[in-house]
Amino acid sequence: MNSQARSLSHQEIIEFAQAFDPQPYHLDSAAGDASIFGGLCASGWQVAALATQLVTEALTAEGVCPVMLTGVPSLTWRKPTFVGQSISTGITLGDRKSGSMVPGCDSQTVTISVFGPDESLVAEITAIFAVESGA
Amino acid sequence: MNSQARSLSHQEIIEFAQAFDPQPYHLDSAAGDASIFGGLCASGWQVAALATQLVTEALTAEGVCPVMLTGVPSLTWRKPTFVGQSISTGITLGDRKSGSMVPGCDSQTVTISVFGPDESLVAEITAIFAVESGA
Repeated sequence: MNSQARSLSHQEIIEFAQAFDPQPYHLDSAAGDASIFGGLCASGWQVAALATQLVTEALTAEGVCPVMLTGVPSLTWRKPTFVGQSISTGITLGDRKSGSMVPGCDSQTVTISVFGPDESLVAEITAIFAVESGA
Repeated sequence: MNSQARSLSHQEIIEFAQAFDPQPYHLDSAAGDASIFGGLCASGWQVAALATQLVTEALTAEGVCPVMLTGVPSLTWRKPTFVGQSISTGITLGDRKSGSMVPGCDSQTVTISVFGPDESLVAEITAIFAVESGA
Protein backbone atom coordinates (compact mmCIF):
# COMPACT_ATOMS: atom_id res chain seq x y z
CA MET A 1 0.00 0.00 0.00
CA ASN A 2 1.30 3.48 -0.79
CA SER A 3 0.27 6.84 0.58
CA GLN A 4 -0.19 10.16 -1.11
CA ALA A 5 2.86 12.42 -1.42
CA ARG A 6 3.41 15.80 0.23
CA SER A 7 6.27 18.26 0.67
CA LEU A 8 7.42 20.75 3.29
CA SER A 9 7.90 24.42 2.48
CA HIS A 10 10.82 26.58 3.57
CA GLN A 11 8.51 28.32 6.04
CA GLU A 12 7.10 25.07 7.46
CA ILE A 13 10.60 23.69 8.05
CA ILE A 14 11.84 26.84 9.77
CA GLU A 15 8.72 27.33 11.92
CA PHE A 16 8.90 23.74 13.17
CA ALA A 17 12.61 24.08 13.93
CA GLN A 18 12.13 27.35 15.80
CA ALA A 19 9.56 25.69 18.02
CA PHE A 20 11.05 22.24 18.56
CA ASP A 21 14.42 21.53 16.96
CA PRO A 22 16.55 24.69 16.77
CA GLN A 23 19.57 23.26 14.96
CA PRO A 24 21.30 25.64 12.51
CA TYR A 25 20.72 23.32 9.51
CA HIS A 26 16.94 23.37 10.21
CA LEU A 27 16.79 27.15 10.72
CA ASP A 28 18.93 28.85 8.12
CA SER A 29 19.69 28.18 4.45
CA ALA A 30 23.33 29.30 4.66
CA ALA A 31 23.94 27.16 7.75
CA GLY A 32 22.27 24.24 5.97
CA ASP A 33 24.49 24.70 2.93
CA ALA A 34 27.56 24.62 5.17
CA SER A 35 26.38 21.55 7.14
CA ILE A 36 26.98 17.85 6.38
CA PHE A 37 23.51 17.82 4.79
CA GLY A 38 24.39 20.44 2.20
CA GLY A 39 21.15 22.37 2.50
CA LEU A 40 18.32 23.49 4.77
CA CYS A 41 16.51 20.32 5.81
CA ALA A 42 13.54 19.37 7.96
CA SER A 43 13.69 18.13 11.54
CA GLY A 44 13.46 14.35 11.68
CA TRP A 45 10.43 14.73 13.98
CA GLN A 46 8.68 16.82 11.35
CA VAL A 47 9.36 14.11 8.75
CA ALA A 48 8.10 11.40 11.13
CA ALA A 49 4.93 13.32 11.92
CA LEU A 50 4.25 14.02 8.24
CA ALA A 51 4.85 10.36 7.36
CA THR A 52 2.44 9.03 9.98
CA GLN A 53 -0.17 11.54 8.85
CA LEU A 54 0.15 10.18 5.28
CA VAL A 55 -0.09 6.62 6.63
CA THR A 56 -3.18 7.49 8.69
CA GLU A 57 -4.87 8.86 5.56
CA ALA A 58 -3.92 5.78 3.50
CA LEU A 59 -5.10 3.32 6.17
CA THR A 60 -8.39 5.22 6.51
CA ALA A 61 -8.90 5.04 2.72
CA GLU A 62 -8.33 1.27 2.92
CA GLY A 63 -10.91 0.88 5.70
CA VAL A 64 -8.41 0.03 8.46
CA CYS A 65 -9.71 2.92 10.63
CA PRO A 66 -6.68 4.05 12.67
CA VAL A 67 -7.73 5.89 15.83
CA MET A 68 -4.35 6.70 17.36
CA LEU A 69 -0.65 6.06 17.08
CA THR A 70 0.23 4.36 20.38
CA GLY A 71 3.91 3.43 20.00
CA VAL A 72 6.97 3.44 17.79
CA PRO A 73 9.16 0.37 18.35
CA SER A 74 11.79 1.76 15.98
CA LEU A 75 12.56 4.87 13.98
CA THR A 76 15.64 5.53 11.86
CA TRP A 77 16.41 8.43 9.58
CA ARG A 78 18.49 7.65 6.49
CA LYS A 79 18.64 10.87 4.47
CA PRO A 80 17.78 14.55 4.95
CA THR A 81 14.53 15.99 3.61
CA PHE A 82 15.02 19.29 1.79
CA VAL A 83 12.58 22.12 1.03
CA GLY A 84 9.92 21.15 -1.49
CA GLN A 85 10.99 17.51 -1.81
CA SER A 86 8.17 15.07 -2.31
CA ILE A 87 7.69 12.67 0.62
CA SER A 88 5.55 9.55 0.37
CA THR A 89 5.31 6.26 2.24
CA GLY A 90 5.23 2.55 1.50
CA ILE A 91 3.07 0.73 4.04
CA THR A 92 3.21 -2.92 5.08
CA LEU A 93 0.66 -4.24 7.57
CA GLY A 94 2.21 -6.53 10.20
CA ASP A 95 0.76 -8.31 13.22
CA ARG A 96 -2.68 -7.37 14.43
CA LYS A 97 -3.40 -8.16 18.06
CA SER A 98 -6.71 -8.08 19.85
CA GLY A 99 -7.01 -5.20 22.32
CA SER A 100 -5.27 -1.85 22.71
CA MET A 101 -4.80 0.91 25.26
CA VAL A 102 -7.71 2.53 23.39
CA PRO A 103 -11.06 0.94 24.29
CA GLY A 104 -12.81 -0.81 21.39
CA CYS A 105 -9.60 -1.04 19.39
CA ASP A 106 -7.04 -3.62 18.26
CA SER A 107 -3.27 -3.06 17.93
CA GLN A 108 -2.00 -3.03 14.35
CA THR A 109 1.74 -3.04 13.68
CA VAL A 110 2.66 -1.11 10.52
CA THR A 111 6.08 -0.99 8.85
CA ILE A 112 6.59 2.33 7.07
CA SER A 113 9.20 3.15 4.46
CA VAL A 114 9.42 6.90 3.99
CA PHE A 115 10.45 7.78 0.44
CA GLY A 116 11.94 10.95 -0.95
CA PRO A 117 12.51 11.76 -4.63
CA ASP A 118 13.17 8.77 -6.92
CA GLU A 119 11.92 6.39 -4.20
CA SER A 120 15.10 7.00 -2.17
CA LEU A 121 14.70 5.80 1.42
CA VAL A 122 14.48 8.76 3.81
CA ALA A 123 13.38 6.99 7.00
CA GLU A 124 12.07 3.68 8.33
CA ILE A 125 9.41 3.58 11.02
CA THR A 126 7.78 0.68 12.81
CA ALA A 127 4.56 1.99 14.29
CA ILE A 128 1.73 0.55 16.36
CA PHE A 129 -1.70 2.00 15.71
CA ALA A 130 -4.86 1.52 17.68
CA VAL A 131 -7.42 0.57 14.98
CA GLU A 132 -11.14 0.09 15.34
CA SER A 133 -12.01 -3.51 16.23
CA GLY A 134 -13.88 -5.20 13.42
CA ALA A 135 -12.77 -2.65 10.83
CA MET B 1 20.45 14.45 34.91
CA ASN B 2 17.25 16.46 34.55
CA SER B 3 16.22 18.98 31.92
CA GLN B 4 14.39 22.25 32.25
CA ALA B 5 10.59 22.14 32.08
CA ARG B 6 8.34 23.64 29.43
CA SER B 7 4.66 23.53 28.49
CA LEU B 8 2.60 23.69 25.30
CA SER B 9 -0.08 26.33 24.79
CA HIS B 10 -3.55 25.74 23.36
CA GLN B 11 -2.45 27.48 20.16
CA GLU B 12 0.79 25.46 19.84
CA ILE B 13 -1.08 22.17 20.24
CA ILE B 14 -3.73 23.08 17.67
CA GLU B 15 -1.28 24.51 15.11
CA PHE B 16 0.88 21.39 15.28
CA ALA B 17 -2.17 19.13 14.92
CA GLN B 18 -3.52 21.09 11.95
CA ALA B 19 -0.19 20.62 10.17
CA PHE B 20 0.75 17.07 11.12
CA ASP B 21 -1.70 15.15 13.26
CA PRO B 22 -5.28 16.22 12.58
CA GLN B 23 -7.06 14.05 15.12
CA PRO B 24 -10.16 15.58 16.74
CA TYR B 25 -8.70 15.35 20.29
CA HIS B 26 -5.65 17.38 19.16
CA LEU B 27 -7.71 20.01 17.31
CA ASP B 28 -10.77 20.87 19.35
CA SER B 29 -11.43 21.26 23.09
CA ALA B 30 -14.95 19.82 22.95
CA ALA B 31 -13.76 16.79 20.94
CA GLY B 32 -10.91 16.35 23.42
CA ASP B 33 -13.34 16.45 26.36
CA ALA B 34 -15.43 13.74 24.69
CA SER B 35 -12.41 11.54 23.85
CA ILE B 36 -10.79 8.82 25.95
CA PHE B 37 -8.22 11.45 26.98
CA GLY B 38 -10.82 13.72 28.56
CA GLY B 39 -9.35 16.93 27.16
CA LEU B 40 -7.49 18.62 24.31
CA CYS B 41 -4.04 17.05 24.27
CA ALA B 42 -0.85 17.36 22.24
CA SER B 43 0.23 15.09 19.40
CA GLY B 44 2.69 12.47 20.60
CA TRP B 45 5.14 13.71 17.97
CA GLN B 46 4.95 17.21 19.42
CA VAL B 47 5.71 15.80 22.89
CA ALA B 48 8.62 13.75 21.51
CA ALA B 49 10.09 16.74 19.69
CA LEU B 50 9.75 18.98 22.75
CA ALA B 51 11.35 16.32 24.96
CA THR B 52 14.38 15.86 22.72
CA GLN B 53 14.82 19.62 22.53
CA LEU B 54 14.90 19.75 26.35
CA VAL B 55 17.40 16.85 26.37
CA THR B 56 19.59 18.58 23.78
CA GLU B 57 19.71 21.69 25.97
CA ALA B 58 20.54 19.66 29.09
CA LEU B 59 23.28 17.65 27.37
CA THR B 60 24.79 20.84 25.97
CA ALA B 61 24.82 22.38 29.45
CA GLU B 62 26.66 19.26 30.71
CA GLY B 63 29.29 19.53 27.96
CA VAL B 64 28.16 16.43 26.03
CA CYS B 65 27.74 18.50 22.81
CA PRO B 66 24.92 16.76 20.91
CA VAL B 67 25.06 17.56 17.19
CA MET B 68 22.10 15.57 15.90
CA LEU B 69 19.51 13.01 16.86
CA THR B 70 20.24 10.06 14.53
CA GLY B 71 17.83 7.35 15.66
CA VAL B 72 15.13 6.34 18.09
CA PRO B 73 15.29 2.63 18.96
CA SER B 74 12.07 2.90 20.97
CA LEU B 75 9.36 5.41 21.80
CA THR B 76 6.27 4.78 23.91
CA TRP B 77 3.62 7.23 25.05
CA ARG B 78 2.06 6.54 28.46
CA LYS B 79 -0.24 9.48 29.17
CA PRO B 80 -1.71 12.46 27.31
CA THR B 81 -0.16 15.93 27.61
CA PHE B 82 -2.75 18.65 28.17
CA VAL B 83 -2.62 22.41 27.54
CA GLY B 84 -0.23 24.21 29.86
CA GLN B 85 1.05 21.08 31.63
CA SER B 86 4.68 21.19 32.62
CA ILE B 87 6.86 18.71 30.72
CA SER B 88 10.40 17.83 31.81
CA THR B 89 12.78 14.94 31.25
CA GLY B 90 14.97 12.61 33.26
CA ILE B 91 18.08 11.68 31.30
CA THR B 92 20.30 8.60 31.68
CA LEU B 93 23.41 8.28 29.53
CA GLY B 94 23.88 4.77 28.11
CA ASP B 95 26.48 3.26 25.78
CA ARG B 96 28.80 5.55 23.91
CA LYS B 97 30.32 4.12 20.74
CA SER B 98 33.13 5.51 18.65
CA GLY B 99 31.95 6.86 15.28
CA SER B 100 28.62 8.07 13.93
CA MET B 101 26.90 8.86 10.64
CA VAL B 102 28.00 12.43 11.41
CA PRO B 103 31.73 12.97 10.75
CA GLY B 104 33.78 13.81 13.83
CA CYS B 105 31.13 12.43 16.17
CA ASP B 106 30.50 9.46 18.46
CA SER B 107 27.16 7.74 19.04
CA GLN B 108 25.67 8.28 22.49
CA THR B 109 22.62 6.29 23.59
CA VAL B 110 20.33 8.26 25.91
CA THR B 111 17.34 6.91 27.85
CA ILE B 112 14.74 9.63 28.35
CA SER B 113 11.84 9.59 30.81
CA VAL B 114 9.37 12.32 29.90
CA PHE B 115 7.58 13.61 32.99
CA GLY B 116 4.33 15.51 33.31
CA PRO B 117 2.92 17.08 36.49
CA ASP B 118 3.91 15.36 39.78
CA GLU B 119 6.66 13.41 37.96
CA SER B 120 4.03 11.22 36.28
CA LEU B 121 5.52 9.30 33.34
CA VAL B 122 4.22 10.70 30.03
CA ALA B 123 6.56 8.94 27.57
CA GLU B 124 9.73 6.87 27.40
CA ILE B 125 12.25 7.41 24.62
CA THR B 126 15.50 5.67 23.80
CA ALA B 127 17.47 7.99 21.54
CA ILE B 128 20.83 7.89 19.81
CA PHE B 129 22.60 11.22 19.46
CA ALA B 130 25.65 12.06 17.41
CA VAL B 131 27.89 13.87 19.93
CA GLU B 132 31.16 15.64 19.31
CA SER B 133 34.11 13.26 19.69
CA GLY B 134 36.27 14.17 22.66
CA ALA B 135 33.54 16.26 24.27
